[in-house]
Amino acid sequence: MNSPFVSDVPAAQAHAAWREARAAAGCPARVETVRVSVGEAVGRVTAEPVWARRSSPAFDSSAMDGIAVRASGTVGATETTPVVVTDFEVVDTGDPLPPGYDAVVMREHVHRTPEGAELRAAVPPYQHVRSIGEDISAAELLLPEGHRLRPVDVAACAAAGVTELVVRRAPIVVIVPTGDEIRPIGAELRPGEILDTNSLMLAAQAREAGCEARVTDIVVDDPEAITTALRAAAEEADLVMVIAGSSAGRDDYTARVVASAGSVAVHGVAVRPGHPVVLGVAKGNPATPVLGVPGYPVSAALTFDIFAAPLLAELEGAAPRERPSATARLARKLPSVFGMDDWVRVRLGRVQNQVVATPLPRGAGVLTSLVRADGLLVVPAGVEGHHAGSEVRVELLRGLSEINRTIVAIGSHDLVLDLAASALRAADPLITLASSNVGSLGGLVALRDGLCHIAGSHLLDPATGEYTLPYVDRLLDGSGIAVIRLVHRDQGLLVAPGNPLGLKGIDDLTRPGLRYVNRQRGAGTRALLDYELSRREIDPSTIPGYSREEHTHLAVAAAVSAGRADTGMGILAAARAFNLDFVPVAQEPYDLVLRADDLSGDLLAPLWDLLASPDFRAQVEALGGYSCAETGQRIR
Amino acid sequence: MNSPFVSDVPAAQAHAAWREARAAAGCPARVETVRVSVGEAVGRVTAEPVWARRSSPAFDSSAMDGIAVRASGTVGATETTPVVVTDFEVVDTGDPLPPGYDAVVMREHVHRTPEGAELRAAVPPYQHVRSIGEDISAAELLLPEGHRLRPVDVAACAAAGVTELVVRRAPIVVIVPTGDEIRPIGAELRPGEILDTNSLMLAAQAREAGCEARVTDIVVDDPEAITTALRAAAEEADLVMVIAGSSAGRDDYTARVVASAGSVAVHGVAVRPGHPVVLGVAKGNPATPVLGVPGYPVSAALTFDIFAAPLLAELEGAAPRERPSATARLARKLPSVFGMDDWVRVRLGRVQNQVVATPLPRGAGVLTSLVRADGLLVVPAGVEGHHAGSEVRVELLRGLSEINRTIVAIGSHDLVLDLAASALRAADPLITLASSNVGSLGGLVALRDGLCHIAGSHLLDPATGEYTLPYVDRLLDGSGIAVIRLVHRDQGLLVAPGNPLGLKGIDDLTRPGLRYVNRQRGAGTRALLDYELSRREIDPSTIPGYSREEHTHLAVAAAVSAGRADTGMGILAAARAFNLDFVPVAQEPYDLVLRADDLSGDLLAPLWDLLASPDFRAQVEALGGYSCAETGQRIR
Repeated sequence: MNSPFVSDVPAAQAHAAWREARAAAGCPARVETVRVSVGEAVGRVTAEPVWARRSSPAFDSSAMDGIAVRASGTVGATETTPVVVTDFEVVDTGDPLPPGYDAVVMREHVHRTPEGAELRAAVPPYQHVRSIGEDISAAELLLPEGHRLRPVDVAACAAAGVTELVVRRAPIVVIVPTGDEIRPIGAELRPGEILDTNSLMLAAQAREAGCEARVTDIVVDDPEAITTALRAAAEEADLVMVIAGSSAGRDDYTARVVASAGSVAVHGVAVRPGHPVVLGVAKGNPATPVLGVPGYPVSAALTFDIFAAPLLAELEGAAPRERPSATARLARKLPSVFGMDDWVRVRLGRVQNQVVATPLPRGAGVLTSLVRADGLLVVPAGVEGHHAGSEVRVELLRGLSEINRTIVAIGSHDLVLDLAASALRAADPLITLASSNVGSLGGLVALRDGLCHIAGSHLLDPATGEYTLPYVDRLLDGSGIAVIRLVHRDQGLLVAPGNPLGLKGIDDLTRPGLRYVNRQRGAGTRALLDYELSRREIDPSTIPGYSREEHTHLAVAAAVSAGRADTGMGILAAARAFNLDFVPVAQEPYDLVLRADDLSGDLLAPLWDLLASPDFRAQVEALGGYSCAETGQRIR
Repeated sequence: MNSPFVSDVPAAQAHAAWREARAAAGCPARVETVRVSVGEAVGRVTAEPVWARRSSPAFDSSAMDGIAVRASGTVGATETTPVVVTDFEVVDTGDPLPPGYDAVVMREHVHRTPEGAELRAAVPPYQHVRSIGEDISAAELLLPEGHRLRPVDVAACAAAGVTELVVRRAPIVVIVPTGDEIRPIGAELRPGEILDTNSLMLAAQAREAGCEARVTDIVVDDPEAITTALRAAAEEADLVMVIAGSSAGRDDYTARVVASAGSVAVHGVAVRPGHPVVLGVAKGNPATPVLGVPGYPVSAALTFDIFAAPLLAELEGAAPRERPSATARLARKLPSVFGMDDWVRVRLGRVQNQVVATPLPRGAGVLTSLVRADGLLVVPAGVEGHHAGSEVRVELLRGLSEINRTIVAIGSHDLVLDLAASALRAADPLITLASSNVGSLGGLVALRDGLCHIAGSHLLDPATGEYTLPYVDRLLDGSGIAVIRLVHRDQGLLVAPGNPLGLKGIDDLTRPGLRYVNRQRGAGTRALLDYELSRREIDPSTIPGYSREEHTHLAVAAAVSAGRADTGMGILAAARAFNLDFVPVAQEPYDLVLRADDLSGDLLAPLWDLLASPDFRAQVEALGGYSCAETGQRIR
């Protein structure tokens, strides 16, 4: 049963196999019904058709402010031969039509005279009368079975005399976190331990899906303990989710445990991330579906969407919630493994009147890829990826009007952009500044290809010693391009507190046994290092660790902080964030490159306002290692 | 102040005037912040940027099941010159990288020998190592201010060592229902009274928008009582909604009351439905925004969407929730008043590969138009409507995949279609059968124009005495058309219980003083009446009420039940629904007309299965007045 390797069952086939196994084991097709008042019914699903018990409105009423008349008494009235009516009643909108009257004349068309009300047009019967049953006729079908109740639905039910509704109760989800190394949120971690963030997330996802969710205590990696926890959870749950241990490593017991407690329908699906999933059933009275959720957080989140959410909707007898979708142009080539559905997280923004999708990091462990995602792109199993520029269909995680107001920044990473992102959003919740970090050179290429609004750059040209502008001329048609100075910032060597190796500068990097950590090719910080090395005629290959690459200043700082490297080049702010020491090497300008046309557009206007704000400049300089002396200046 | 007529302020201008009035009166721009645990933070909005406190993962770990090795010990290994490593440790995915090791080899690539682990390829440093900070680097910006927290967000916060978040508290909405004629839900109604369904609906809408909502007791139409209630509500609320009395009738005090308690910014907006809205402020410490909500239920629901929801999102500092939209083809001409934004409710379905939008009844009192709507179409103030067949942009109220599985039935109304709609949904929550009632002739025209999948018809051809088929030949290219018998049903005169006028049949309809209620032109029931009249050589104009039209059997029954008419023609089921008596006139077939191509398609397959089900036939015959002897037969 606990096969050494997990299989690759296509998603549709996995759904079918699980459904069959549930039916065979006697899992209920639907949760029970309950009778609730209309006030408590919002969000629940009808378990029977709702027929109107009475008509609404329940009486004929005036649809206007005016007077109620007998239509027959107005025959012959015209502009030239008005009729004066004495038999009428003043009515307001909504008033019952007084007995004996059969039409209403709007206040604006009534000319009051001493004799009565003068009318200059004949009135047809039932003019401006809101008929009994105009909205709802008694005995009509108001709602079908299987309808998730919204505020308007319960109001209509109440109007139709239906004050209680028979609905499906909320499904109950019990989550069983497992793993010797898992600690509850808030615990102090020892080396090798990780926090139980998956339970928090899955419980919240279940509640968002309209369920009740409960998390058990964390269970150690012991098959018997997990079996006991699973059986107990199955007693009360409509779905049990066992987190982690779903793969086939030495401590991965989920498949074995589910098999012993019932049966495993599927172990391993052709979906990435989320591959080592377990779909099964626990015996009991009745039997209960069990989902073995992989421990990597992106896998866990998507496993809920792909396998738990449809089952939970089915248990309620309702259609699963559906994400809207849109067409987007892919910013870069997207390779994908043939034979696996590949769920890629993307950032979205409207650039030059097209929605552009930029893929985010694809690791199953990179939860921030889901946090930052505006959309999900599924590359189906039968497709080996997409070319850059392809039109792709994307499930939206944010509204299109928010996406349309997103400033897309691709290029070098700087904390000032993060600070700006938060300040812009705080001032106007509709504005997003989304930055993707691909290095300065990558940003300029993205700008050239119409994939971003601004490219953050601090690229040093070794030939001229000049920053960014030579690249703008080389890569972009310089004439239509504007360059705005964001900041000057200090670059230097990040070293452990106290600088234990006593590094003084670039010359020390060739020291034997030193472990350097570099930035990726195309990063401005790498270009700066290369420039400094070439000035000194140092061969890069003599620096131990030159080929080890990280993609952000903070990642370099993290490597030094963890003792995985002795030093790397980065900005002072990154050193401060990790309490590292800093050996200054140079001060460099960091610039924003953009299309000159966009300078005066609505999208970027709030950014220019922000750069002019003394408050914001003060915040930037407080980060340390930044100068705002030229912030906001146009230098090209 | 309380002007006799309300104005027509354009929506954008109304928003701006209200915002200005709120700022001038000192209404808070945002609700207060609170500090909550990550578990309680889902759905709330961040009130400050969230920076990571620690890196995640917090240590280098194995990204695969396999063995941890020293990369330097594998140099030179190839297929032909394997290297046997003795210094290694077995690791599973997620295990910390053991000290001294710097790379991982996948289990699949390790060949265990008695001497150790044989490797057939050199291993680069950090292969299959998940780096510290791969997901989150300490000190990076995790979330900006103004972000509504989702399950993935709080999980990422917890992983980054942030266990408490500073968020905006939920805004508090207090709803004040007013009106002498308003009764609480569940009350027995006397003539002229109506139920307080608006409070139920608005409170549920506010909760859906993430707010706390409270409804006060119903306040009588007395300016002082309403003022007292408003002032008390403003003490505790971030937004007070006063329901009804927002127009300018004799008992409409809202504008006057708001003016006396503070100020009115706008009374009347150029929006339909929802025109007589009041936007104002109540003085206090601090001042509180007040929204006077029109009493018509569609106006009330849309007023919430248009004016309350954006304000409430602004108070939280978040982007308002946004509905997805799609392009659709308009099924029929849609006139609209120039100068008013017109919010039209539409049904949607995919017919012949195009999403088709059919407008629903437009009265502000027809809440079922919102219940049945799949989308909202806004005809802007500057547009006088759209032609039939126009491409229009529609805000979606249901998911597109549900819309794609909607069976669109346009034509004559029959309760059997309602019964089928509910049974289909109960069996598969993704299926909707949506029927619009425009009469038999209208249905056939809609089918011809590609606006529906099935047209329900019981049209009698007076020349031949034959039903439906002669019209199919005349209106549609008969060859591509299939006709399926749904039922036979009894048609007759609906009369008050006990048949007080002693009507025996069609011949009695010319009786002086009798009040007949007719069906609309194109309705099969009207064609049947006309046929019966012509057979008897009765002139329709001799029947009192012949020109008074209702659009459904149930509406005719409602009119008779309310005593507004003495009789009208309709089906037995309608008589039963209203406890009326029934004078049989004829038995007629009711058929479904459709494109023959659609007969074998996936969309309609569940309907044919249903018609074949003995259970369903039994349910139909139990309604009374129906025969299923030929149900499901193809007659053309």
